[in-house]
Order: sequence, then structure tokens, then C-alpha cells
Amino acid sequence: MLAKQHLFDDATRVTAGDSRWRGQTSDDYWAFVGPFGGATAATILRALIDHPQRSGDPLSLTVNFCAPIAQGPFDLDVRLVKANRSTQHWSVELTQEGADVATFATAVFAARRPSWSHQPAQLPKAPPFEAARPYPKSSLTMSWVRQYDFRFIEGEPQFAGAPHAEPASASSKMWIGDRVPRKIDMLSLMSMSDAFFGRIFHVRNEMLPFGTVSLTTYFHADAEDLAGEDISHVLAVADARIFHKSYGDQSGELWSPNRRLLATTHQIAYFKA
Amino acid sequence: MLAKQHLFDDATRVTAGDSRWRGQTSDDYWAFVGPFGGATAATILRALIDHPQRSGDPLSLTVNFCAPIAQGPFDLDVRLVKANRSTQHWSVELTQEGADVATFATAVFAARRPSWSHQPAQLPKAPPFEAARPYPKSSLTMSWVRQYDFRFIEGEPQFAGAPHAEPASASSKMWIGDRVPRKIDMLSLMSMSDAFFGRIFHVRNEMLPFGTVSLTTYFHADAEDLAGEDISHVLAVADARIFHKSYGDQSGELWSPNRRLLATTHQIAYFKA
Repeated sequence: MLAKQHLFDDATRVTAGDSRWRGQTSDDYWAFVGPFGGATAATILRALIDHPQRSGDPLSLTVNFCAPIAQGPFDLDVRLVKANRSTQHWSVELTQEGADVATFATAVFAARRPSWSHQPAQLPKAPPFEAARPYPKSSLTMSWVRQYDFRFIEGEPQFAGAPHAEPASASSKMWIGDRVPRKIDMLSLMSMSDAFFGRIFHVRNEMLPFGTVSLTTYFHADAEDLAGEDISHVLAVADARIFHKSYGDQSGELWSPNRRLLATTHQIAYFKA
Repeated sequence: MLAKQHLFDDATRVTAGDSRWRGQTSDDYWAFVGPFGGATAATILRALIDHPQRSGDPLSLTVNFCAPIAQGPFDLDVRLVKANRSTQHWSVELTQEGADVATFATAVFAARRPSWSHQPAQLPKAPPFEAARPYPKSSLTMSWVRQYDFRFIEGEPQFAGAPHAEPASASSKMWIGDRVPRKIDMLSLMSMSDAFFGRIFHVRNEMLPFGTVSLTTYFHADAEDLAGEDISHVLAVADARIFHKSYGDQSGELWSPNRRLLATTHQIAYFKA
């Protein structure tokens, strides 16, 4: 029953084809001039996870945002580039009405075998989700922001205030869950990995023309690990190292409250300032 | 005159085609079971930089290593996926004798316009290159290692010693330059971004089966910036956050001695332990 489906699942729904799958943009996950990149990335990942030839779990997904996506349906050309014993390499091209490629993605899936485990990274300190204050709903007009329950621990943007006279920290720390709670899976991790506010907004405390150009997310838990976590929010930290000649970077981590690092994410983004 | 060419330029040489370019592996840049991934990545980048349709400078390059590359020639299928006013999206598929794709890459090029600049990241502290001790040549048998002048500041591997009883730090800090000095350009930055030793070697102080699966490098300087640096070595730091179910991550930074962050790099790698 679609009526009972979570908005996120509705927004990232795909229809199977052979090599051509179909999806469509969602007004519920809309950003500046097109769909929220995280929803697009999750839709692409869903087509791969649902693909009959898929084996293993997502290990990495790189999404290159080549051109704006218009409101409406799109095609996903899905291709298994190379399959090995335990890994698969995929490419996905998103087009609309036969026009140029708007989004271009490559993914690696892997059958993750048991091994020595070691996690040098530590869960950043934060009060529990329940104790943190939700980010006010009305702060931003983009619809995708309203689909998430952001709870900033550090670096909450105060867009009502004046731009910073001196650059502030580019780092932020927040809890993030779906506004209507939904168990964290690979799809929501993928989407949340693009659900950070632009680092430049944190540094300058102002909204500027901004767009992710290329995004890569690495998954450090497999589907079994993730199901075992049984969580509906993650602790998300991000930072930037440099803004130069119209492009800036971002690195982020998505943490289970149970101290497990679930995913790391990196991107390069355009800005006008 | 090829005889006067730097080994690196020889190793990453390409022959132009329309959409199909040619390259070949170099015995001078050989790793465990195939060519050094950095040389492969740089060769792919060279084909793009030399391409008549290329405009702008490399902004990001993602390389997915799908299968071993055999010694000998290879074809590069180069495709301009989408061109905008100031960015280009490319894909490159490396094949040998018409077999399956062995390496699959996507790249973004951008005409980088002047903008507000801000570099929150700081050059890590290190004695100057000249004062640092070169890593002994004979430690490793892989030929690519001999093409670089590594000078560790922190985390120098001691493979002659016993494996660590407890996991050591995954981080390392080193100067790196070509063994035969060569001015740093986009190609050498790309190659050096894969010239870190596997993080697991640092943590365990032992060599184990290891292979990069997917590598993404972001360039934070354009060709003009880089030419202005006029350097032949960079300070390279790297760290890892997690090793789990046969895969581990790595994030690295490549710094000009002049305090400019030139590139950041991220990868997910397979290990057997």
C-alpha cells in the first residue's frame, strides 16, 4: 500500500527494467534548483540494490552531479561493468527524455567476509538524540530539509543573524533522523551522507549559491551489521579543509549511537562567493 | 627525446585516439600483482588532460580498480559524458585486448574562477624535506616504491621487525617526491595520492594481501596555482578510521611546503587479515 509507505521510500522509488530503470523526482525532497542530491543518490542506490544481478552489499558509491534534474520522471541506465568473485562494479547514468546525462554514478558492491576488525575512530562526544534540541522547521524553505530531524550539537546555523565578519569553524556535529522515523538502512545512510548543510554556510553564516559536484560515500557496515544496529538516527559530523577558486571540500562521518562508524563521505562542491 | 624523459612520464605515456587512447604498463611502477594504481590513475588523467576536447583543470578523479591489469598495452575508452559552461564530466574505461573493464574512472574538470578563499586546514608540522631521512631503498621489492623518495616524519614502517601485538596508529606523515626530482604537476599529485602504504601495514606492521578498490582525489589548486608553487615534493599525511569485514578506508592530504593544500584523497581498500 503506497499510502502507508514512508515519504523517503516514495521519493526514491524505482521501476525495474532490464538495463533501464525509471524513477521520478519528489517535491518532498527538493533543494535549490533540483531534487535533493541525497535523494537522487539513494534512488540510484535503490536501483542497484534491487537489481536482479546485484550481489553483496554497497561498499562505495560515487555520484557526479553533471546538470540540474528537472521535476518529473527520469531514466536510469544501469550497467554491471565488471563482476568478480566477491565484488561488483556498476555504473548508472541518469537521463531525462533522452537528453544529456544529468547524473553519473559508479558503485562497488562487495560480499564482505569476516576479518580482523579495528576502528581507530571514536564516536564523537554528544548528548543523546532525545536530549538534543530539534532544528527549527521554519528556518529553510527547501522541502528536503523538512524531511529530516536535525539536532545540532555543534555548529547550528543561525541564518537569521548577520554573516560572520571572520570565518567561523567549518565543522558541525548533529544527530539526524528521518522526520517520520524510519529504520536506518543503506538507502537512508546514502541520503544522509549528502544531508549536511554546505560547509561554506557554516563558515560564513549565510546562504550562497552552492552545489555538490561529486560525492563519494563509503559504507563500513554491511546490511547485516546495519540491521543489527536497529536505529533510526545517526550522529553526523562534517568538516572542510579548503575553499578556493569556487570549490570547497567536505568530509563527513555517520555514526551509530552504538559507537559503530557506519559510513564516511566526501564531496567537492561549487560555491559562488 | 624519450631517452631524456622522466621515468614517470614514460610510465604514464598515452597515445591519442578519438575516443580510444592507448597506454601500457611500466615495469618501473609495478606493485603486488599489477601496475601501481597511482601510475594507472595518472595515465588515465594524462589521457584526459591531453584530450583535444578537455577544458579546465582536474577537480576530481575517481578510479575504481575492477580487475588486475596484465603487463603490456591497454586501451582507454575516453568519453565526455557531459559538458557545461565551466565543468566537464568524463568517464574512462581501461581494457586489455577487448576483455572486461579492468579499471573504471570518472573525472570532473572545471574552469576555476577567482573566488573568496579560505583554508581552515593547516600544514602539518614537519622538519623540512632536506632535513628528513630518506626511507631505505631496499625495504620493499615492489618497483614503484623505488621511484619515490619517501621521507617519513611519523609512522615509518619497520617491516623487518615483528608485527605489532596491539594495533598501532594508522596515521603517517611523510615527504614524498620523485626519486629523480620532477616538478609536481597534476599527474604526479594524482599518482602520489595513491602512494601511501596501506594503512593496515602501519597498524599491524606487517605486509598482508591488500588492494585499493576505489580511490577519489580532489584537486584544490588549478594548474596555474600548481605551476606557481614550483615544487618537487609534497608533505603527505594519511589516516584510517576503520577496518571491518575485509575493507578499510584511508583519507590523505598532499601539501605544498608553502602551506597550500594541493589535494585530498580518499580510498576504500581490501585486505586479508
